[in-house]
Amino acid sequence: MTEARAELCPNSFLALADRMTAASGEIVARYFRTPVTVDEKADESPVTIADRTVEAAIRDLIASHCPGHGIVGEEYGTENPDAEFVWVIDPIDGTKSFISGVPLFGTLIALLQGGVPILGVVDHPALGERWIGARGHGTTHNGKRVTTRACAGIGGATLCSTGPDMYRGGDAEAFARLRDAVKLVRYGTDCYATGLLASGFIDLHTEAGLKPYDYCALVPVIENAGGRITDWQGRPLRLDSDGRMLAAGDSGTHRTALDILSS
Amino acid sequence: MTEARAELCPNSFLALADRMTAASGEIVARYFRTPVTVDEKADESPVTIADRTVEAAIRDLIASHCPGHGIVGEEYGTENPDAEFVWVIDPIDGTKSFISGVPLFGTLIALLQGGVPILGVVDHPALGERWIGARGHGTTHNGKRVTTRACAGIGGATLCSTGPDMYRGGDAEAFARLRDAVKLVRYGTDCYATGLLASGFIDLHTEAGLKPYDYCALVPVIENAGGRITDWQGRPLRLDSDGRMLAAGDSGTHRTALDILSS
Repeated sequence: MTEARAELCPNSFLALADRMTAASGEIVARYFRTPVTVDEKADESPVTIADRTVEAAIRDLIASHCPGHGIVGEEYGTENPDAEFVWVIDPIDGTKSFISGVPLFGTLIALLQGGVPILGVVDHPALGERWIGARGHGTTHNGKRVTTRACAGIGGATLCSTGPDMYRGGDAEAFARLRDAVKLVRYGTDCYATGLLASGFIDLHTEAGLKPYDYCALVPVIENAGGRITDWQGRPLRLDSDGRMLAAGDSGTHRTALDILSS
Repeated sequence: MTEARAELCPNSFLALADRMTAASGEIVARYFRTPVTVDEKADESPVTIADRTVEAAIRDLIASHCPGHGIVGEEYGTENPDAEFVWVIDPIDGTKSFISGVPLFGTLIALLQGGVPILGVVDHPALGERWIGARGHGTTHNGKRVTTRACAGIGGATLCSTGPDMYRGGDAEAFARLRDAVKLVRYGTDCYATGLLASGFIDLHTEAGLKPYDYCALVPVIENAGGRITDWQGRPLRLDSDGRMLAAGDSGTHRTALDILSS
């Protein structure tokens, strides 16, 4: 283990994240579009053996390479959350897509230092596409640097969101205002919308009802590509955020969209 | 041209469709995720040089190999619609996805004989996935036979649709009833939902406001995989259908969904 541990200085977290996605991609390939049993969790969201096996594999890598680090995972809960470094993992973000054969689901891996997301990976194994964002690394798509695009105005913007049905009460009204203000809306993109935004193909991405493992990995990917990502009050996304997320390719569009959501 | 024409007996339409998708895939690869100009058509739907170039290439193949055949195309209109054989083409179904970097868009090619769709191709060049359905051929996904799945009941069904916003008036209420009756809904899947249904990954697919080039190619893909596809009154889809489409993996689920849509 000496050699492995020697890699675990902060500069090697990217290499460790690579190992995690290599492991998760191999597991996902084994289960995607096969007749896996779908269990229902307490919150009625679906979970499969693929979700559980991916998270277990990633947790094993953390335990063997960074035993002092904390972990927040969708399937197996929280360990050592007060550590300086905490990994936040969604083994399959978009399990509903995964069990429907839709390849847009992804594995989300974030590393937080002192509560701040410093590394984010959004990996889409069924598409062979991976976005990685980190300080000093920028944001890459399959190894190539990408940046968000500028948007001339909200009326020309393209917005992605999982779907209008997931917003409740005042959130539904706020989302409807934003939807009506933009030019084009695409639903059902799951976390793939993060990559589309980081690569400058869309302008806005918003969701509500997210958990930390749904949004932490998105932060470094968007920020290091030049975009802006906050909650609906414009505050940075941290472990205790309220689950509302707004990301934009430029800060002007982000401000306008925030105003619309809160008006 | 003698050799080419010699291939144009009915048994060779599949080979001609292969040439069409080879041509369209090459064109799409040239333009996808590049900064193409987006024009707006009279109905406010977007169109790009990729849509136009793909359709022109397919029309050229029809003109040189089947000069007596009719054509209905999204971008360049109708020619010789009373011919025994009529090709119905959507060069890029899901142009909104195409211009947003979402790879689920597809090229749709149908061949009608006496007004009945006998061959359908749903090609997703950005994903390297192609579904082909034809009498005597069954339905294939990348060359491998696929079939729809049986569904135990509407309450366990997975439904795909572009999104709830596209339904108007009574159609919106009908769609909401169906959405509330099923277990799982996925939005934004464009024509990719047809392949998911043909391959047995989902149970239902419905849309409204479609044009003939949006639905004709779906018919042979779904029917030759064992599924059922009609309008919302249960009538076969033909060039003069009203644009409402319901496809299901089994006939029982199709009947139940029809009842819900019309109740």
